[in-house]
Amino acid sequence: MVDSEAPSTTRSRERTRRKLLDAAAQVFAEVGLDAASVEAVCDRAGFTRGAFYSNFESKDELFLELSGIVANERVEAVRSRVGELESVGGFDTQPANAFAIIEQVLDVSADDRLSVLLMSEIRIRALRNPDLAAAYLQQEAEMQRGVAQIVTDIGRAKGIEFRVSSDEAARIMLLVWEGAAVRAAMSGVEADELRRRTSTELALVAQLTIHDPQRP
Amino acid sequence: MVDSEAPSTTRSRERTRRKLLDAAAQVFAEVGLDAASVEAVCDRAGFTRGAFYSNFESKDELFLELSGIVANERVEAVRSRVGELESVGGFDTQPANAFAIIEQVLDVSADDRLSVLLMSEIRIRALRNPDLAAAYLQQEAEMQRGVAQIVTDIGRAKGIEFRVSSDEAARIMLLVWEGAAVRAAMSGVEADELRRRTSTELALVAQLTIHDPQRP
Repeated sequence: MVDSEAPSTTRSRERTRRKLLDAAAQVFAEVGLDAASVEAVCDRAGFTRGAFYSNFESKDELFLELSGIVANERVEAVRSRVGELESVGGFDTQPANAFAIIEQVLDVSADDRLSVLLMSEIRIRALRNPDLAAAYLQQEAEMQRGVAQIVTDIGRAKGIEFRVSSDEAARIMLLVWEGAAVRAAMSGVEADELRRRTSTELALVAQLTIHDPQRP
Repeated sequence: MVDSEAPSTTRSRERTRRKLLDAAAQVFAEVGLDAASVEAVCDRAGFTRGAFYSNFESKDELFLELSGIVANERVEAVRSRVGELESVGGFDTQPANAFAIIEQVLDVSADDRLSVLLMSEIRIRALRNPDLAAAYLQQEAEMQRGVAQIVTDIGRAKGIEFRVSSDEAARIMLLVWEGAAVRAAMSGVEADELRRRTSTELALVAQLTIHDPQRP
């Protein structure tokens, strides 16, 4: 063991962080990011401000981590769905139909109005705070790499030739995903309809990244 | 004249609105949207709150109109640039090089950090306010129609065959434009670099909307 903390301390610390993050998600859902104070999060989690600041530098750091968890869970769900489809040979037989692929891999997506609002609020704060912006962009770059890997994996599994690099495809798809989700959330639609609209827009841009097989 | 107001009254009213909008842009630039109160805007413009409320229903309505003006000026600048290029036969000779086209038509773009921030703040407020959301989505739909017309005009002028409808191309390009501009603004780059990054990402997605002429 080179770790300076004993395993039980590490686990206890992990539990504290997790409880603070869960409390933050609840407080955010109730009052929004501006009004979600460190104090309110601590009260909800049943911890002191001391416990908070020994785990997070600031409220911004806490909410950035929360948005990172939401984004990662999304990418992980898609990744494991792709693995599942590969292993059972369950991919649609059309070789390059992005609409069918997106429909198959995104039925695990958990987008909803609250996660859209959280990500939007984090971006606004990052636009005003260079340190938070740097941390946000780094977190997003990691997510982009995860999505680029999924694009590569799907391409290999389905024999798809892309018109752009997997990094470029991932970047553009994430921007369209985000923008479409924001519009759907603005329209006030339910979570199912929000996912359907986002998937449709995402499939449209995914299809554009693929060479058109019918093209002479 | 069926208008109930005399022409000079209409002009005076238009001047008042314009002064309030100019003042709002200044106050927003200094303190952000949350802190930009109706009172602060009135003080800056030299008007009473009565004058404000006889022109705008609310602060949200004022800032929505301001964001609409910014967006329209952008679309209008691109439209007139396209007309100019058509009339002098000045389009690049490569028939389907979106990068060259975007570079030519977007050198008039006036994106900057403040307009990115304004649009982002309006979207956050619209996510929380259904009336503002409806008005925002309507305003955006108009902008999309304007961009779709530009896409159609460029397609005709250059003999380009698109892989999606001009409406779909416009929608996707506007989402990528917005997302790319937000990331560039977060990075804290100067206005020129912000425009360069946004144009590059926009050209990438524009190129995808065009059939690949080299494809066998």
